[in-house]
This record gives sequence, structure tokens and C-alpha cells, in this order.
Amino acid sequence: MLVSPFPFPSSLDQNLPPVQSSPIEHLPTPLLCVDVSTVRNNLQGMADYTSGHRIALRPHIKTHKSRLFSQLQLEMGAVGLTSAKPSEALAAAIDAEDILIAYPSFTPPRLRLLETLAENHTVRVGIDSVEAAQRIAARELANSTSTLGLLIDLDVGHHRTGIASVKEAVALAQLIESLPNVRFDGVLFFPGQVLPTSQSVAAGMEDVRETLVAVIDALDTAGLRPKIVSGGSTPSAKYTHLIPEITEIRPGTYIFNDLNSVRWQCAEFEDCAAFVHATVISTAVKGKAVIDAGSKMFSSDLCGADPTSGLGYLIDHPGAKLARLSEEHGEIELQQSDWSPKVGDRVRILPNHICPCVNLQNELVLVDGDQPVSHSTVDARGMLH
Amino acid sequence: MLVSPFPFPSSLDQNLPPVQSSPIEHLPTPLLCVDVSTVRNNLQGMADYTSGHRIALRPHIKTHKSRLFSQLQLEMGAVGLTSAKPSEALAAAIDAEDILIAYPSFTPPRLRLLETLAENHTVRVGIDSVEAAQRIAARELANSTSTLGLLIDLDVGHHRTGIASVKEAVALAQLIESLPNVRFDGVLFFPGQVLPTSQSVAAGMEDVRETLVAVIDALDTAGLRPKIVSGGSTPSAKYTHLIPEITEIRPGTYIFNDLNSVRWQCAEFEDCAAFVHATVISTAVKGKAVIDAGSKMFSSDLCGADPTSGLGYLIDHPGAKLARLSEEHGEIELQQSDWSPKVGDRVRILPNHICPCVNLQNELVLVDGDQPVSHSTVDARGMLH
Repeated sequence: MLVSPFPFPSSLDQNLPPVQSSPIEHLPTPLLCVDVSTVRNNLQGMADYTSGHRIALRPHIKTHKSRLFSQLQLEMGAVGLTSAKPSEALAAAIDAEDILIAYPSFTPPRLRLLETLAENHTVRVGIDSVEAAQRIAARELANSTSTLGLLIDLDVGHHRTGIASVKEAVALAQLIESLPNVRFDGVLFFPGQVLPTSQSVAAGMEDVRETLVAVIDALDTAGLRPKIVSGGSTPSAKYTHLIPEITEIRPGTYIFNDLNSVRWQCAEFEDCAAFVHATVISTAVKGKAVIDAGSKMFSSDLCGADPTSGLGYLIDHPGAKLARLSEEHGEIELQQSDWSPKVGDRVRILPNHICPCVNLQNELVLVDGDQPVSHSTVDARGMLH
Repeated sequence: MLVSPFPFPSSLDQNLPPVQSSPIEHLPTPLLCVDVSTVRNNLQGMADYTSGHRIALRPHIKTHKSRLFSQLQLEMGAVGLTSAKPSEALAAAIDAEDILIAYPSFTPPRLRLLETLAENHTVRVGIDSVEAAQRIAARELANSTSTLGLLIDLDVGHHRTGIASVKEAVALAQLIESLPNVRFDGVLFFPGQVLPTSQSVAAGMEDVRETLVAVIDALDTAGLRPKIVSGGSTPSAKYTHLIPEITEIRPGTYIFNDLNSVRWQCAEFEDCAAFVHATVISTAVKGKAVIDAGSKMFSSDLCGADPTSGLGYLIDHPGAKLARLSEEHGEIELQQSDWSPKVGDRVRILPNHICPCVNLQNELVLVDGDQPVSHSTVDARGMLH
């Protein structure tokens, strides 16, 4: 019998792998379990928010990297998908008609992958340099007549990538318009600095809007009004309506959430869908329990909002601290906990940062509460190009 | 034409994948390149040291996770291989006759994998608890008559796992001797606290020896003298002769080395075999260059000996600092550098910690200087059980 972990959408039911019959406590650890009810609620919440505000939703697949979850996002109304690399899109976003590579993909191997994608998809690429625009325009066009849409990456305060100068942004849009094989479609940005824990999100969004509107107005004046204004990030996603110029958002982490989401106050613990199940393998050293999950299971990412809190959160033993990770060992300090772990005990740990954690897995086990119901391969894991 | 990247041992020549004909600057980035001459020198150096001191060498495959490098280590005189998990051993250590799982593998899924391994291999497991010994002894023995060797994990000062009490160690050895399906073979330990940057490695090794000898003498008195005394760690490896009781070592990182190895003074830069090749994808934000390699390429591990030095070392631009990694972006600060990067430039970066970096790759490109010569799959990547 095939039990659907997702009561909707129905088309997914046909393609799911067989249900795992073992109770969860018999499945091998370390194991990353994803609760399907929580995923459904998270996806529905973002779909409701964006449709209610008439904002297009183009989820970033970087968090789940799985075709199964891509399909679910599309069936729940996403207008398309986002990925960082074309190889990831080919592996896990291929069911979308419309794909944004939110990353300057201009090296020859990536241009070849973009060509493949563009055979059957609307493809856009985010760039922030003359060099990237020229290389994408000059790409090899053997057996291809595709035109790639380009979005100009704007720095709205995160200061990682993106153009901050109005003049340079307009000049780049004009250059794109003059080049063959590419089309100027609009702008994109990543407001990574806007966090609900800031004193005022509204003020943060107002600063973003100021930068954004200056560029949009200048582009408009130059006859190049952007069709697409693509924003996003999970922490700022539900404040998007404060910037009416935004046409679409690209949140990724919201599908699963993690300790960062909770500490940045964009999710509650009950919105966290993905937990590492681990087994205590040693209690020989006093004051400590060691589990069979280390940096090769969790990644070494700290919690951005609370960097001294440890390498993950023991949801059932909040006084215990996952203080250190080596490759295969997680060391839990017990000084502040009344838990008395025994060798063989199992624990559930909420990762600090779920995206690199998923990227370390070959597959995810889908659970409904404590019941394993199916599994999903991490199709775009390790796709680096 | 098949060119051997390893002039010896000859049996490897037959099984290598075709030579990559593209010059290295045409291969896609991000890319982890492994220089075969440096690997050969590193392996030869450790083989010479151990054979010269009549110490058995049982390399840990955690660093390379690749059957190709396992074969090379065996052909150069390793007596067997070490892995943390039985699934890793099945994927990448299967050519060894003799395998040590230096990790308490006692859950039912791991016991089943151990049984599979034991059908054709001498298999030993390191443990530090009564529970682990009992579970391994009581494992399901359908279609199997295998006996697993057990080594008792001793805490010699690293305080992660291992028994520190002489009395408990002897009691555990006696228990093992009383149980079916297992055999007491000796002790193992990880001297992770002994680093060449310490004031005196000799003093550190003397402390280790003191703990070790107390346990060995007590076991001897109880009629249970350990046949195997298994130590190791790359930083302490070449000081092993200071503890004549040690019969074998299990270094892993020495095959490739990394910035940790250099900063811990157990390798020179010229002994580092594995470099990430990356491309500059943005220079839009002032004072910064952004490359196409982030935490999903390098891992987020800091340099243990120099945690403020950044997320990797730009070997050709030592003044530039890889200051931040997000998932797909590496942010290089240029304030202390006279390098003027352009979009499209390529850089070589020495990872802080090579083991999790390799674990993020599907394959490694083997190079001889600047010439790609072959590639190797990372066979045990993501093997968590």
C-alpha cells in the first residue's frame, strides 16, 4: 500500500517510493528526518502570504535540493524555481517552466548547462558585472537560438555581491540591451541584512526600498523599466508587502526552517520540519555524551543569531549543549542538564543551518510525526557547477 | 593513451579513468584538484617512517574516502585500513584484508554491515562501553560464524571518547573475554591533544605513554596483554617511536594535508596536495572579491591552530583573506593585498580542513602540477552508517 505523505497535491502520490515499514527508532542513525505536515504548513503559509499580496513566489531549491519538494512547491502555486547553479536546476528544478539562476553563471561549462536548460525552459540569470553580461552574450550558440534573460543584481545593504551605484546599474542594463542572445528583464537583490530581530524590520525594509526605487526610477527614465523585481530571503519574506515594487520573492529555508529561523524570529520551533536523529555512542568521559553525528552530518555552521549556543539544538534536552563537532563525533556537554544519557539512547537535534546539512545527505526520510512514510533523494546534492 | 598519474604501484595503472585532455584552466570551477606527486611523497614519507621504526601503518580513509587511494596505501605497505563507519569501509576500504572500525558500531544496521564485512575480512571494532561490547556480542548471527575483534578505546588526554580508568579498562577486557562472538585484541586511542605546536611534543607523548603503560601493565597482570596498541593522528604520527608500546598508527590527513597541517607544523605548504580552484564571480562590492566556492565546497571548518585566519588560504595571494563563506559564495577581503582581481580570474585555495571538503565532492581531479591526468570518485562520500 502506498500512503501519501502529502494529502495534496495528488499528482505526487503516484511517484513516491514505498513506505518504510520500520518504526523510526529502528532506522539507522545518523538520519535526517523531515516531517511532512510541517513542510505542508510552511509551504501553505508562504503560498497564502504571497498570493494574498499578489507577489509571485519563486522558491530557492538550495535548501531541499530535491525534485520531490520542487514539484510540491510548483503544485502549490510557485511561478517557477530559483537555483544558484545550472547543474542544480537540471537535477532538481527541471519540472519548472521558468527557472532563475540567481548567480552569475558565465564560465564555459556553466554556459553549456544553461543552453541545455534553455532548450525547454524560460531561463534567467542574475549578474552584477560587464564581464558576466559579455560572456553570457558571447556564448557558443551551436544548435541553439536561445535568448537568456538577465537580471541585474543590486546591493541593497547586504554587501556580498550586487551593484550599489544607480549610474552603473543603468549602464549595465543599457549594455545588456545592446548585446546579442540576452535580454534585460529586471533586477534582483538579496536583503540578507534585514532580520526580524533587528530593532525595526519596517525601517530595514524602508532602507532597501530607497535603494531599490532609486535604481528602478533611473532605469524607467532610461526607458528600461524592470519587468521583474526579485527579492527574498526567508527572514524578510513576509515583510515583502512593505516594498510594493517587488514582483517576486525567492525564499529557500522556509520549507524546513532551522535554529537560525527560530533565533531570527521568523519561525517557531513547531515550524521546524527537519531534525537529525542520532545515537549516543559513548559516555566514557565524565560530564559528556558523544553522539554518532559530527560535522560530516550537520556541517560546522554556527547559529548566526546565537553563535555561542553550540552546533545544534537538542529539542528534548534543552539544557544539554552540542558543544563540539569533529567529523564523526558530536560532543554534548551535560553540566546544565538533568538528562542522564546511556550508550544506545537516541536524540533529536535541530540543525543550526539546514541547507548545508541537507547537502551532506544522500536521502531524507519523510516522517509524519514518529511514523516514517517515505523518503526523498537529495537530487542536487554536490552539484557545484 | 592512458598516462599513469602514479608511476608506481603498477597495478593501479590498469584501472584509472581516461586522462582529462583539457588544460586545468578550462575545467569547471569550483574544483578540488589533488596533486599526485605530492600524494606519492606524503605516502612514501609515512611508509618510510613506520617501516623504519617497525610500526604497522593502518591509514584512516576518512580523508580521501576513495578506493583508488586506499589501493595506493595498501600497495605501499599499509597492513590494513581504518574507517569510522562500516558503510565507509564497504565503499572504499574493501581491498584491505584487515579493517579496523575505530568507532563503536553497535546499532543493528551497523552490525549487519559489520557481518557483511566480516565474511571476507578480518574486522575489529573500537569500543569504550559495556553496552557496546554486549550489543556487538549479541548481534544476529544468521548465516554467519564470524568473530569480531574488539579494541578498547582509551582516553589518553583528548577527552572526547575512551576509558581513562585502569580498573574499568581491565573490567571491560575481562567482560569481552567472557562474551561470545567477540575477541579481545587490544587497545586503541586518539592523541588529538598532542600537537607539534605544543611547547614539547616529547612531554605530550610521555604523558600519553604514562596512561597507556598503566593500562597495558594492568591488562598484562590480568592475563590480557593487548596484541594491538593502535595510536595515531597525523600531527603526532612521526613521534610514535617515542612510545615503543604502540604497535600501529592510523593517520588520515597526511595523504593530502591542509592548512591545519601547516599551522600545526606537521607539514609544509609543499606537502599540501589538495587545492580548491575557484573563479571570481563578482567584484561589485568595494574592497572585496567573491568566488564561486562557499561552505558547500569548503565546509565551514576554521583553521584549528589559527581560527581567525579565515576560511581557507589563498596560496597565490597570501594578503587576501577568505573572510566569509555563505553556501555558494566565498568573500575575499582585499585590504591587505595588492591583488586586483577581475571577474573571471581563477584562484587556488588551500582548505583549512581537507576531510570535510573532500566529503562534499563527488569526484577529485588528479593533477600533475598544472596538468590534469585523471580523476577519482569519492566512493565513501555521504556514507554515514
